[in-house]
Amino acid sequence: MILGVTMGDSNGVGPEILLNAYRAGELRHPVVAFGDLSVLAECNRRLNYAVPLRALSAVRDWADDALNVVDLCLLQADDIRPGQINAKSGAAAREYVIAAAKAALDGRIAAMVTLPMNKEATQLSDPRFVGHTELIGQVCGARDVTIMLVSDKLTVTHVSTHCSLRQAIERCRKDRILRIIRLTCEACARLKERPRVAVAGLNPHAGEHGLFGREEIEEIQPAVEQARREGLPVEGPVPPDTVFYMAVKRGRYDAVVCMYHDQGHIPSKLLDFEGGVNVALGLPIIRTSVDHGTAFDIAWQGVASTRSLVAAVDLAARMAAGSQRP
Amino acid sequence: MILGVTMGDSNGVGPEILLNAYRAGELRHPVVAFGDLSVLAECNRRLNYAVPLRALSAVRDWADDALNVVDLCLLQADDIRPGQINAKSGAAAREYVIAAAKAALDGRIAAMVTLPMNKEATQLSDPRFVGHTELIGQVCGARDVTIMLVSDKLTVTHVSTHCSLRQAIERCRKDRILRIIRLTCEACARLKERPRVAVAGLNPHAGEHGLFGREEIEEIQPAVEQARREGLPVEGPVPPDTVFYMAVKRGRYDAVVCMYHDQGHIPSKLLDFEGGVNVALGLPIIRTSVDHGTAFDIAWQGVASTRSLVAAVDLAARMAAGSQRP
Repeated sequence: MILGVTMGDSNGVGPEILLNAYRAGELRHPVVAFGDLSVLAECNRRLNYAVPLRALSAVRDWADDALNVVDLCLLQADDIRPGQINAKSGAAAREYVIAAAKAALDGRIAAMVTLPMNKEATQLSDPRFVGHTELIGQVCGARDVTIMLVSDKLTVTHVSTHCSLRQAIERCRKDRILRIIRLTCEACARLKERPRVAVAGLNPHAGEHGLFGREEIEEIQPAVEQARREGLPVEGPVPPDTVFYMAVKRGRYDAVVCMYHDQGHIPSKLLDFEGGVNVALGLPIIRTSVDHGTAFDIAWQGVASTRSLVAAVDLAARMAAGSQRP
Repeated sequence: MILGVTMGDSNGVGPEILLNAYRAGELRHPVVAFGDLSVLAECNRRLNYAVPLRALSAVRDWADDALNVVDLCLLQADDIRPGQINAKSGAAAREYVIAAAKAALDGRIAAMVTLPMNKEATQLSDPRFVGHTELIGQVCGARDVTIMLVSDKLTVTHVSTHCSLRQAIERCRKDRILRIIRLTCEACARLKERPRVAVAGLNPHAGEHGLFGREEIEEIQPAVEQARREGLPVEGPVPPDTVFYMAVKRGRYDAVVCMYHDQGHIPSKLLDFEGGVNVALGLPIIRTSVDHGTAFDIAWQGVASTRSLVAAVDLAARMAAGSQRP
């Protein structure tokens, strides 16, 4: 079982994180990088690393004597501008992702793990570029993709993410909630037997019987009831200020379906700011991602943490193994 | 410096918590109870405690040989119905609070600390009763009272609390935010020299320059700027999923002004479910409160935690000392 790791924007922290994780022996599963071998070689040189690199013509040629690279040959050493937004590196980062997604679709890799792209850099060549997840969705022909945020202590999904809180309330609808519940339960089942999933309320005290808002009564409760009729192991709506305590401190839930971005991101970031992993749900392939950006301010200094990449690789491997479960 | 502690609803966990904290020597400051001596005596008897009780005719007669009680003589032992909603005990609990608030206003006590009332029980005799804080506000002639939630690790205030998330967004207005910033800074200054206060954004990533909502630009930022012109030590709007991490893990802020109930309650409850203390801001007196309810399900069993009361007494004493600071 080989996992693909995309190198991310070459001017960010992606290349050095990949090399550092390899050097430290932190990559506990066979990986193949999708990127530019010349960039990784230059990173080796500038940071005085000596990671053996091996260009693959095909994933099946993988061997464990080096960091294997599917070399897309898009950039040269003199294209590198650490910490800068650059059209060429932005376009290349996009190609690494497309190549890895196709390899995952074809079954050449068991899962893909992504290092960070720079949105602005990629938009210089592709103005319609929205984000990593949407791009992979396009390659896979999947429209409704959502992100699960997994950390050591807490796993959350969201009914909406990058929109205003006002819009998030509008998006808090039964069909959408039910879809996220289904995806969350399916993903959790790959990670654990008999998972238990909580659905958070939207309003304080989950609305207190309609006193502080009616979304729980009109949208969330019906979605939970439908999911339970489908046999899904779900409870809710649970008061938002209690559900994370119950999940994390009491171990009562394996994941929490959240109604808006900050409901899930506030506890996740508080508990584990650096080690989180994003998992895309709703794709026909397994894809995890580090939960940080290109960090241009510290790029090519060799100081970026490998924690999130290591966690993302481990999680991808677990999910790939879980998907083979009978 | 003597602090007043109201006994709370006699059918809840208030009486036993007070006796247990006294027995264990956890009350590190002189306190006088406002309640019914007969109830405390009966609690002593039923739970086999032997807390010495002393009825005071006036607070100035306080002596440290017993738990001093301003005895309101409203209930008898046979009025006690552990765990039940009862009109007489609800009405009595209201009187304890009024008596303590008047004593604090007169300066007979340095601060008041409240044990839980039961809203439904008190509403049986006073249908207009909304809550503890509003009642004390009425006694003090203060209209705009807000709650600060203080735990070991995190201190938060809220621009709105018990309303729907939709209404909370409507209440996110410059004037209201500025008022809460001022009250928060004032309270923090009683607890610490040179406090630093953060103001959270409302939307994901604090709106990302208007992309995910404009409340940060139109309401929050102007409130923060006005507060800074007034010399207040405040920063913001800070992205909601980062601000608590910065406050708790990096120690960068002493308090966070939150835009809605769960924004502050989710991290507070996650970090410290039992030990939180509520502080009323906007009153002419100092008042802290335990952060739990009457817990009728476990009342009169002697098992309720004293942690929140002890923390509430300690905090009231610190604030009372801080208010005497030149």
